[in-house]
Formats: sequence, structure tokens, C-alpha cells
Amino acid sequence: MSVMPVEKYRAVQPIDLPNRQWPGKVITKAPLWCSVDLRDGNQALIEPMGHDRKLRMFRTLVKMGFKEIEVGFPSASQTDFDFVRYLIDNGEIPDDVTVQVLTQAREELIIRTFDAIRGTKRAVVHLYNSTSTLQRRVVFGLDRAGIIDIAVKGTQLVKSLVHKIPDTEIVLEYSPESFTGTELDFAKEICEAVMDVWQPTAEKPMIFNLPSTVEMATPNVYADQIEWFIRNVKWRDRYLLSLHPHNDRGTGVAATELALMAGADRVEGTLFGNGERTGNVDVVTLALNMFTQGVDPELVIDDIDELRRTAEYCNQLPVHPRHPYAGDLVFTAFSGSHQDAIKKGLAARRKQNDVVWEVPYLPIDPEDLGRSYEAVIRVNSQSGKGGVAYLLEQDYGLHLPRKLQIEFSRVVQGHTDLTGKEVTSADLYGMFTKEYFEAKYPLEFVHHNTLPANSAGEESSITSRVKVYGETKEIHGSGTGPIDAFCDSLAKELGIDIEVVDYSQHAVGQGADAEAVTYVEMKGEGNITLFGVGRDRNVTVASLKAVASAANRIHAAAAAGAK
Amino acid sequence: MSVMPVEKYRAVQPIDLPNRQWPGKVITKAPLWCSVDLRDGNQALIEPMGHDRKLRMFRTLVKMGFKEIEVGFPSASQTDFDFVRYLIDNGEIPDDVTVQVLTQAREELIIRTFDAIRGTKRAVVHLYNSTSTLQRRVVFGLDRAGIIDIAVKGTQLVKSLVHKIPDTEIVLEYSPESFTGTELDFAKEICEAVMDVWQPTAEKPMIFNLPSTVEMATPNVYADQIEWFIRNVKWRDRYLLSLHPHNDRGTGVAATELALMAGADRVEGTLFGNGERTGNVDVVTLALNMFTQGVDPELVIDDIDELRRTAEYCNQLPVHPRHPYAGDLVFTAFSGSHQDAIKKGLAARRKQNDVVWEVPYLPIDPEDLGRSYEAVIRVNSQSGKGGVAYLLEQDYGLHLPRKLQIEFSRVVQGHTDLTGKEVTSADLYGMFTKEYFEAKYPLEFVHHNTLPANSAGEESSITSRVKVYGETKEIHGSGTGPIDAFCDSLAKELGIDIEVVDYSQHAVGQGADAEAVTYVEMKGEGNITLFGVGRDRNVTVASLKAVASAANRIHAAAAAGAK
Repeated sequence: MSVMPVEKYRAVQPIDLPNRQWPGKVITKAPLWCSVDLRDGNQALIEPMGHDRKLRMFRTLVKMGFKEIEVGFPSASQTDFDFVRYLIDNGEIPDDVTVQVLTQAREELIIRTFDAIRGTKRAVVHLYNSTSTLQRRVVFGLDRAGIIDIAVKGTQLVKSLVHKIPDTEIVLEYSPESFTGTELDFAKEICEAVMDVWQPTAEKPMIFNLPSTVEMATPNVYADQIEWFIRNVKWRDRYLLSLHPHNDRGTGVAATELALMAGADRVEGTLFGNGERTGNVDVVTLALNMFTQGVDPELVIDDIDELRRTAEYCNQLPVHPRHPYAGDLVFTAFSGSHQDAIKKGLAARRKQNDVVWEVPYLPIDPEDLGRSYEAVIRVNSQSGKGGVAYLLEQDYGLHLPRKLQIEFSRVVQGHTDLTGKEVTSADLYGMFTKEYFEAKYPLEFVHHNTLPANSAGEESSITSRVKVYGETKEIHGSGTGPIDAFCDSLAKELGIDIEVVDYSQHAVGQGADAEAVTYVEMKGEGNITLFGVGRDRNVTVASLKAVASAANRIHAAAAAGAK
Repeated sequence: MSVMPVEKYRAVQPIDLPNRQWPGKVITKAPLWCSVDLRDGNQALIEPMGHDRKLRMFRTLVKMGFKEIEVGFPSASQTDFDFVRYLIDNGEIPDDVTVQVLTQAREELIIRTFDAIRGTKRAVVHLYNSTSTLQRRVVFGLDRAGIIDIAVKGTQLVKSLVHKIPDTEIVLEYSPESFTGTELDFAKEICEAVMDVWQPTAEKPMIFNLPSTVEMATPNVYADQIEWFIRNVKWRDRYLLSLHPHNDRGTGVAATELALMAGADRVEGTLFGNGERTGNVDVVTLALNMFTQGVDPELVIDDIDELRRTAEYCNQLPVHPRHPYAGDLVFTAFSGSHQDAIKKGLAARRKQNDVVWEVPYLPIDPEDLGRSYEAVIRVNSQSGKGGVAYLLEQDYGLHLPRKLQIEFSRVVQGHTDLTGKEVTSADLYGMFTKEYFEAKYPLEFVHHNTLPANSAGEESSITSRVKVYGETKEIHGSGTGPIDAFCDSLAKELGIDIEVVDYSQHAVGQGADAEAVTYVEMKGEGNITLFGVGRDRNVTVASLKAVASAANRIHAAAAAGAK
């Protein structure tokens, strides 16, 4: 027996659709996009947009490439009416953009709607009435015939008004509102009745918009409903099938994608999914999902941060940090193994000079959206060497050897485990500096004088000035090269026995500012093996500093172990 | 030619799955839930949880009814290790709850993992290595055999360690990480190799967790992959099939639902979808989606506001206002027609005393989640009479007649069109009071003395004291009842000609505090028809005040029209 009152709810009945085709289909083309930000989105705001915010939204939508934009419900709100008139009277609507206006199928509202759109080149008049079983019963108290009558009368009135504004091409859109709660045979009946009045043609089709006004079932059911509609409603070439999904079950994007696979032509949605309750379907996510599959989204989203700022300003609602493509955290990998894989993926792509984007954990190149790699990797106590190494490389030009990555990431993790905080790239560099470059006690390298080998087989000899426990000393040694000779001098004159295990060096910066960074892995006291790092404009000095750094770290580790 | 660099991306290849079964299936049973809030969720936080926040999360998950909880990656983080030990050493794990710990398939990590879980009754050891084509190439540089070797060696080591902690029942979970980017035949090969080592039985099955580590395709593809796996991998009765979906394309919930239809047994996810990048799948939405279909979710979510506060506190990340079920705005309807339909739906349900929840635009009863109706309806410039009427009824006990709802909603809309702001219920009542109760100029009712009719056919007569333009007068009239008599006196003595069109009255409050509210629709000067409303403890006084209210409003409207 459940604690939750399960008995209050009934499952939606599955659609009987023998041999359904959509599950084997793939989306290969963007739909005709219609933004409803200024209507369905706007009506659901705590503070609806005023004129200025509406205009900013409209211009943004035009710039993105929307060719159809629902600009309001002018018969229901004076603000909406005035805004539609403003757009028309001030030439804000480009020739290739069609404005769309919503109206209920009621006489006075339809007449007022025509007053709103007078003078525009082309307009979609979007007529709706509610057709669901539930609404017929509890809201309208009408039978099927009564509901069809509303739709038919509305269509007749729209038709009769078309000649009154002859300079405007009128496209009829009809929505059986709450379609997902409507019996399919009734949806067919009412839509065919509307077509019988309107008489669309293949050249001048109408639009049937089938809203998932409330998401009521798993997303496959919406696709089934769309495929059923296309199979069963007459005159398929005389209408565009439009989707208008909401997101009550968090599956609005999915329902839209499956319904497009089922044959829909057009999608009504909003930027980042604003809209009534849980929102309308998010057209940005839909478009970028297509983009990641190599399908031209037919919308321009090359500065998603700016787009997000506009939407947040106009809607006065935030975009969540985990919102696909746009959220603050979605190009951020905290996990060490993810960071490591991303780093390797980016490197492999650079190396192969491959046009195709294939990087682990990043389904899209952030740069394509105007976002940068910098935000990709952040480091916290859950991060490993990959993130640490990436940030030091990206921001400070340091190419840490793999074993040093592991060694230093333990240093970082000791810190993050202690503080529980995220560390920035600058924090990391500070830790690295403290741990390696500033490891100057008890031994500090000051100066050297190297005599190179004169001929094959002969050894280099080196005289160095160092400080030991603060006291300046000159030490001398010889070996196969300066590092070897320096180690020789440390052993013979100071009793510091350390040997080189591994060594690498690279340049940082260019030209006169270039410096060398040397990494030496060394074994010393108590067989402790650790890295030292040195940095200098002189490559030999960088190496000798690195040796001193390693010597000090080994000494400290041995002392800590002896305690 | 697109502005967006479409050529960089390739479509995921569809799965060849003849006669796929899942699109015809329905979810009839909740899966085995496993929370990964403390691991996958935690690792993706800007500031990962410390001990206190972890413990609060763990206790919340237990209370909700999770029977499996991934508590950390103890071999990778000292904080995680310490927390697992704390849970075990302090008896925080109920007998019917199994903790799960993640580990890569590497020797030192597996050994450390066993140190972490020693002493618990039952634990899932969750072993993973990355198997995708891309990661094999760019991250590991290994062929298929090399990757299988990692999984097999890891499994062998886990198996060899089981006897070292005989008091703990060990369940093996194996994840071919980045499964969605792995060739299906290779996923089969590696999983069967793991089974060959582990030798699970029907009585003691293992878990195969098939992560959508990165969402790479429309959600049907994940379902195809799961159905393929179930059809083709041996020993179906010896493993539980677990899903671990992410949300890169915003379709994580959908992919999970379709994959459950395809036969999966278990779901790993987080509260409200926290997790790497765009998050893990949201188990709260999944569970409540099932609940709305009459399927026992097997999780208790009866105070979703409290649950949300806990998640926001532990994660230090917000839940979006439009997040399904939990967001601030999801039980809010701004649109007038939506408000009207909700109001009628709630009324119909009350009237029919029906257990089944069927209310337009509300797929779930907010009360089932511990949320209230109060938040259901808010009023802005996009709202109509429905919302206005609902709030006045809900919060002030006023049952406005339908025509008055329309009349007053115009008053409200005039206000909201002007300010562009949402109005609260208190704002509405303030407007109503100002518009109706305070319409006392030029005529104010003060007092009356009524003589009832003595016998059938005889008329009532009334003597009233009123103020006219501030001057007190006594007026007298007669009629079929007090209202009629009062109108008679207004006409005869003051020249105010108004007649009653409609009338209704109801009580507000109970007992000694009860008052009567009277609504009168009246026609007067220039055939203007408007409502007046009166309120008083005396029913007759309420009616006479209503008449005066109507007289004043008609007078004002006529004066405004004459200007």
C-alpha cells in the first residue's frame, strides 16, 4: 500500500497504432519554427513584458532567423493590441517574417483581431477552441457537435473578414486546444470540418496546430497521436502539421523530437522553454540538438550567452545553471576522469586536424555557441589530475609530465578535501608555485658557472653559488652535463645524495619573454622519489633550480616521514 | 548555407532493431531506484557537500524510501571515504538499505574501496571502465581486448576480495561507461566477459548499469539500445538492467521512460536532476510522472517543498521556477481561460465527489505533494475573469455572478494593462472594495425603517435615511419588497430612475460574524447596466447598499460618457 494516493490517478490509454513508423525514423531537416515567446511565454510571466521588453524580444527573434512569430493575443489585452499595431505601423516586420496572432473562436474577439493585423503583409490568424473530453464536460457543458460548431463558426467569420483587409495575406491556423486530451477521432472530425469551411489548397495550405497543452503521457504517445492524425485526416498536402508542446512531465523536448519523426512540419515554442507552468518546449535546445547531429537548425545561435541574457531580461526569469547548452555549468567538468578525457580529446582533435567534433563528455564545441573553453574545467575535491593539468596548461602554459600531474593533484586534493571549496586556475597556480618554485629551503640555487665538455668523453664541470640554511656557499662538481655535474657537487660538498629519474623541459612564452621550465623527477633520502620544478630565462638555470626544488621537497618528505 | 558550422557534426547511427517492442509498451511498475546524489550529483557541485550536508542528504533519501544509495567514490576522495565509514560506524544505514560505492577498475582503488565498506550488511560495489569507441581511441589508446582486460581484471579482484569481508554481502555492479557511445556488440562482449568471471545466478544476480554518460541522440535510440541489449546478452535472469541517464539534450527523463518500456529494471538518478553538466536524470520527476498514471512510485514525495529546500541547501543550486512538480510557478495559471477552466474543474470534482483527479491544466493535485491551491491562480494583465473570480472566492468568500466577473475583470485589466504588474489577491479585493463598496457618491445609504407587507397583495413601504451630495435626507417609497420600495423612493424623491435587472445574495462567514453580500445588476441613466454590491450583517441593509452602489456607478459611467 503506497503512502501516495495512487488511486486518484488513471493511466492514459495507449494509442492503437499498428505498424507505427516513427520509431525507425531520424530527423533530417529543421521544422518551420514559430516563436510564441511574446504570447504563450509572455502570458505566463509574473510581470509580463511591457513595450520595450517586447520589442527587444521581437528584434532578437527576427535576428535569430524566426520566420513566424506569434506576437500576442490582441483581442484579449490592450497591451498586446498596441504592440501589434506598433510593429506594423513602424515597419518592424521584415518582408520574410510573418506575424501570428491568437484568438479564441468568438465573434467580438475575431473582429478585434483583424483590427490589430490590418496593414501587415502576411499574418497567421491562430484560431482555437478547447476540444478535450474533460473541458467539453466541465468547462463548456457542450457535446461534440456544439464544440465543432464553435470552430466552424469561427472559421466562417475569419473567412468572411479576409476580403476586408485585402492587402494582408491571411493564413489560417486552427488549434484543437488540449489536443492531447481529445479523442483522436474527434480531433479528425473537427479539423476536417474546419477544412471544409476554409478550403485550403496545396499552394495555400492552412496550419493544424496540435498542442500538447498539458503533457499527459510518456512522449511516445504524442508521436503516436501525430502519426495517427497524419494517417487518418484527409488532404495531407493541404495543411502543415504544427506542434505546440508543453513540459509538464519534463519531456517536452523529447515529445517534439518524436513527433517530428512522426511527420510534423512545424514547431511552436519559446527560448529556453519559458511558458505556462513548466513552460513551452525550448526551441534553443531543439535546434541545438539537431545541430549536434549535423542537421542545419535554421536558427542562428552563435552567441548563446547574449541570447540567454536577453531572455532573462525580457522574462525576468533565470535560465538554470544546468540548462542544456546555455547553463553556467554545462561546459564544466569537475570529475577528474572526465577532465582527463576532455583534455585528451581536445589534444587528439588538434593533432589530427579533424573537422569533425568528437570530444568525450562534450557533445558540442562550446566555441560554436560563442562560449569558451576556459569554463570547461573547474577543480574541486572531486577532480583529479586531468582538470589540474588542463588549467595549468591552458592558463599558464605548463605541460606537466603525467607523473607530476598525479603528484601535484594529491597536493591539490589535500587542499580541497580540507576546505571543501572549488579552486580557481589562479589558486592552482599559486599552489604550484608554493609547492615547487618556492621550495627553497634548506637549499637555494643562486648562480652558476659552467665549463662545457671540451671534447667527446670529457665531462662538464660546474661551480655554483648556493645558500644552505641561509648560508652562501660555492660548490664544485663535474658530470656528463650541467645537471649531472650539479648533483655531483651537491653530493660531494653538501652530502645531499639525489639522482635524476626523469627529466623534461619546455619553453613558456615567446621571443624576449620566453622562459624555460624544467621538471626533474629525482630519487633521494629514503628512496623517496619526487619532482622538482625550476623556471628561468636561462635553460641551465631552470634545470639547476629544478634540482634544488626536488632536493628540498625530498628532504621535507623524509623529515615528515621520520617524525 | 548555414551560419552555424553544421559540417562539424555527424548524426548518431540509428539502431537496426527489427520489430522493436518498446513503443507499444506502458510503464506499470516503478523501477528499483538508486540515488546517486551523494556521488555523481556531489562531484558536479561548485562546492561539494561537506559531512553535514552529506548526512542531511543521506537521511532525506532514506526517509523518501530509497533502498539503494550510492554514497561516494571512497577510493578517490578522503571526504567520501570518511563519510562511508561514518555511516557504517554510526549505524546510519537501515537494514533494508544498501549502500553503493563507485570505483574504477584499478587495483589500488578496489582495495581501498573494500576498506571503506567493511562492516556494512550489504553493499553494491560499482565497478566501471570506459568502453566507448572515442575513449578507447583518444583516452586509453587500447583495442577492444585491452579494454575487456581492464573489466575482467577488476572483476577478478573484486571476486578475490569478497571473502575478506565475509559479514558484508557484496553485489557487483558493472558499468561499461559511456555505453551510449559504445558499439552494442562490444558492450555485449565486455558484459558477458564480466559475467563469466563473476558467475551471477538468478538468486544472486549482478547489475549491469548502462549509462547514457552523454546524451548523444533522440531518446528512442537509448530505448533501442536497451532492448537490443536485453535481446542479445546471455543470462537475462542473472542480471538487473540499470539505467544511468544524463540530460545533455534535455531528454533524460524521456530516455529513461522509453528505456523502462524497453525492459530496464533499475534507475540511477538524482533529486531534481543535479549532476555533471546538464545533470543526471531527475528521479522526482520520473516518480511523479508514474504517480500521475496511477503507478505507485515507491518513493514518498508528499512534501515536495521541503524536499526541494533540502536539495537546494545540500547542492547549493536552485530548482528552477518551471521545474516539473517542484517549481514555484508550475501550479500557477496566469491565463484567463486556464484559470476559468481550473476553477470549473475543481468545482465539478467537488460536486461529483469523484476520487479521480481530472482538472484542466493541472495534471496532478498540488495537495498530494504538500502544495496548496492558493498558489494556483495569480492575476496579471493576461488573466481573465476566471482567475479574478477564483481568488475573490478562495480568499474572501465572494461568489461573484458570472456577469459581474466579466465586469470586474475589465476593471482589473485596466489596472494591469496600466501597471504591467501582477496583482495579488489582496490587491484584487482592494480594487473590488474601491469599485463597489466605496461607490458612495453622490448617494450614500445610511439607515432604513421598513414596514413589511401585512397581507398578500399589499406592498412593503420603506423610509430610508440617505446622504445625497453629502446632505442627509429622509426618503419614502413602497413596492413588492424592500429593494423595490427603495428604488421607488429614489425615483420619486430624488429623481434617480434605476431598475433591477438581476439580483443575488449569499452569506460570508459563519455564526455571529456572518455577513450578507448582495449583488444587484441595475439599469439606469442612458440604459447603462452595471452592478452594485453591498455588504452588511443585516441582509436588507446589504441589499439597499448594493442598490446605492449601482446607482452611483451608473451615474459615474453616464457622466463619463457625456464628457
